[in-house]
Amino acid sequence: MQTDLSMEKAGLGRSETHDMIAASKVEGTYVYNLQGEHLGHIYDTMIEKRSGQIAYAVMSFGGFLGIGEQYHPLPWSMLEYDPAMGGYRVDLDRDVLEGAPSYARGAEPDWADPAYGRSVDDYYRRKPAIY
Amino acid sequence: MQTDLSMEKAGLGRSETHDMIAASKVEGTYVYNLQGEHLGHIYDTMIEKRSGQIAYAVMSFGGFLGIGEQYHPLPWSMLEYDPAMGGYRVDLDRDVLEGAPSYARGAEPDWADPAYGRSVDDYYRRKPAIY
Repeated sequence: MQTDLSMEKAGLGRSETHDMIAASKVEGTYVYNLQGEHLGHIYDTMIEKRSGQIAYAVMSFGGFLGIGEQYHPLPWSMLEYDPAMGGYRVDLDRDVLEGAPSYARGAEPDWADPAYGRSVDDYYRRKPAIY
Repeated sequence: MQTDLSMEKAGLGRSETHDMIAASKVEGTYVYNLQGEHLGHIYDTMIEKRSGQIAYAVMSFGGFLGIGEQYHPLPWSMLEYDPAMGGYRVDLDRDVLEGAPSYARGAEPDWADPAYGRSVDDYYRRKPAIY
């Protein structure tokens, strides 16, 4: 399950510890489901400005060289970092992911509208991301 | 006070709202003090993994084309986003900044050691960043 990318990340050492990670290192980190299947990687994270809390991780899924790639916002609380895998684990089957809120490059949702975040929270049956 | 960079950022629209901002857009955002002096820009952010809380913003200060640049971790709670300036404002004088914990490129601190974060919190007289 260890990949070249995660091995490389594991070696970063000083910018990634058990407790603290640089945002720039979160981007690109692989995401696996509980069965260990590779689902995608973190493309970006959405931060609630005032609190500094990460509300959503935007996972890139599918596609090739950015073409056909879909972006799936996941409530941050779904992600659990697994040091052995060098990536995040989420309790998420592929069929659940395929029906989930997502968007293509250039068709970003209107994050200013709280209804969008709520639609993500609702789909994954999470409490609203209000901090 | 408006800069080309902040003007450009202000136009990003869909990835930066009043409440939510993409981490990739935080990087590069200008930092000003209360007198409106430009201090530097956000180079990276340090995230507390389990909680998803941003604990520190790493501000780049000084230098030219990365040479002689110093990185200053600031407790996230010090930063206030000012939409009119298109950047963060911090209550921080240059002389306070010059005596603050900082490091050069390639000489990153050991974030795994909680004492480092505490030294930053202590310098700025902030409560420890435990979430």
